[in-house]
Amino acid sequence: MSKSIFYHAGCPVCVSAEHDIVALIGVNNVDIVHVGEDKSKISVAENAGVKSVPALVTPNGNVLHINFGASMEDVKG
Amino acid sequence: MSKSIFYHAGCPVCVSAEHDIVALIGVNNVDIVHVGEDKSKISVAENAGVKSVPALVTPNGNVLHINFGASMEDVKG
Repeated sequence: MSKSIFYHAGCPVCVSAEHDIVALIGVNNVDIVHVGEDKSKISVAENAGVKSVPALVTPNGNVLHINFGASMEDVKG
Repeated sequence: MSKSIFYHAGCPVCVSAEHDIVALIGVNNVDIVHVGEDKSKISVAENAGVKSVPALVTPNGNVLHINFGASMEDVKG
């Protein structure tokens, strides 16, 4: 199975969701990307359809926005 | 592993998220509950912390609201 990508920005909502997603789908099935620490990934996430974090991009390209931590605009600011 | 519970109301956003969640965590690891068809489950979902559908309640009781299909108020109406 291809990996999913979990985008987050270190916020409490993000960290909580990260723990849940890793527990549910397995640490080997997901890449964790911190868009606050690596700003170059913001445009990658946006191009994938990510509007807010935390969000999970599935292997087939669907975006699951999980709860709400921060908008991508907030992350840029 | 205990099962997660995926609450939905049959909306397009719900169905899409259901397919993704089943693909990610496996059909044997999640119970699917349609709160539109079984209204008695609305209060169960609300007591678990579900504010909107689709939502996934993890085995440890956390609620992951995934994208946004409808509020629980909409489901009741």
